[in-house]
Amino acid sequence: MVKLDVRANVLEANDKIAARLRQEWRGRRTVVINLISSPGSGKTTLLEHTLARLQSRLRVAVLVGDVQTDNDARRLAPFGFPVRQIVTAGDCHLEAHLVERHLQFVEAAGGLDLLFIENVGNLVCPTDYDLGEDAKVVLLSTTEGEDKPLKYPAIFHRATAALLTKTDLLPHLDFSLELVRHNLRTVHPGVPLFEVSARTGVGLEAWLDWLFLQVRAKCSGNTVTGGDRHVRGRAG
Amino acid sequence: MVKLDVRANVLEANDKIAARLRQEWRGRRTVVINLISSPGSGKTTLLEHTLARLQSRLRVAVLVGDVQTDNDARRLAPFGFPVRQIVTAGDCHLEAHLVERHLQFVEAAGGLDLLFIENVGNLVCPTDYDLGEDAKVVLLSTTEGEDKPLKYPAIFHRATAALLTKTDLLPHLDFSLELVRHNLRTVHPGVPLFEVSARTGVGLEAWLDWLFLQVRAKCSGNTVTGGDRHVRGRAG
Repeated sequence: MVKLDVRANVLEANDKIAARLRQEWRGRRTVVINLISSPGSGKTTLLEHTLARLQSRLRVAVLVGDVQTDNDARRLAPFGFPVRQIVTAGDCHLEAHLVERHLQFVEAAGGLDLLFIENVGNLVCPTDYDLGEDAKVVLLSTTEGEDKPLKYPAIFHRATAALLTKTDLLPHLDFSLELVRHNLRTVHPGVPLFEVSARTGVGLEAWLDWLFLQVRAKCSGNTVTGGDRHVRGRAG
Repeated sequence: MVKLDVRANVLEANDKIAARLRQEWRGRRTVVINLISSPGSGKTTLLEHTLARLQSRLRVAVLVGDVQTDNDARRLAPFGFPVRQIVTAGDCHLEAHLVERHLQFVEAAGGLDLLFIENVGNLVCPTDYDLGEDAKVVLLSTTEGEDKPLKYPAIFHRATAALLTKTDLLPHLDFSLELVRHNLRTVHPGVPLFEVSARTGVGLEAWLDWLFLQVRAKCSGNTVTGGDRHVRGRAG
């Protein structure tokens, strides 16, 4: 019972900080995307290929969370955007106060269109922690199996968009696209799904279109949307 | 600070129950293996192929943890061994009290040689929770990248053995076996590594040899060992 109370208090304190962050980013018209997945689903690889394609098109920064190492920040640095590693030193998710500590870094980056927060690799714990983001985006790789939306429903239900990564491996896997689409839509009807391969580039344009849509929407004062049928159609 | 205290209390309470479980299983000479990995690394698939090869050779039971669904228990039931699903309903790891609730089921299974506990898919949170097991065994799939032992050092350091799964996909990946071996041994020198493909069967015999070694060791009253050079040599 004490455990539950403490967790409730931690979440409440987190939500307060997240509300401040959201207010801050609303004023600056910066779209904030919280990327969540299992370890090794391809968050950093997706960011590498996304940043490469956004150079001289948008002003972007990245905060990247990991339990240990600054490997990911070093991988993302060459694209010319400001990148900062957050090492949680054992913690299984990012919390809003860890993000808030880097507000100065984010502000120093200038008028940002887009801030990516790459969460710790974990399909459970980051779900409940609001980081003031406009959208949680969940990644699932083809090698993880079609059942993951059913087994980890909370994050797939809360995500504003989903990406199926590593589609170039499909010919080598026993993996049903139809089944994963069905499972995702069982948990979250209508959520946009982008089926991508960072290696071949297939599907990345639809994902970029969706990002530009979010930036335009926020700039005109609207809230971020899950996307429309057109975007979904192009992705799926 | 309250958060840290509560976590310390939770772990302390967990350790007490785990000590009772360990005592119980010592008396029964049942080897208990706690399987830990990211979602989709292949824990259930490994168990399917392991159970198929242990039929009429050992007495085995399985407790399988998931946030939601009893999919995994249903996948493992056809092999003729007792299987019980533990649904954590949101929790990111198994705790000893959840395992203890199923002691009666385990006892009813008769004189077990081997009990597998498949933990929730999560490379962080299950690490600190002792379930009374003889060995934590960590799985990493080739599609997750070579850096995972460095980024999630706690579980790779604590594991008694490690498996690299999905090696059949290596021809289709930019993945260095040398680098993952180096990273694993940086975090945990000397830990046995079994490089396996459940699909082709490659490497499974060395893993089974290791399991039999654990069963024989416990039966003769010895503690579980990490394996010897011979076993490692056959796996690597």
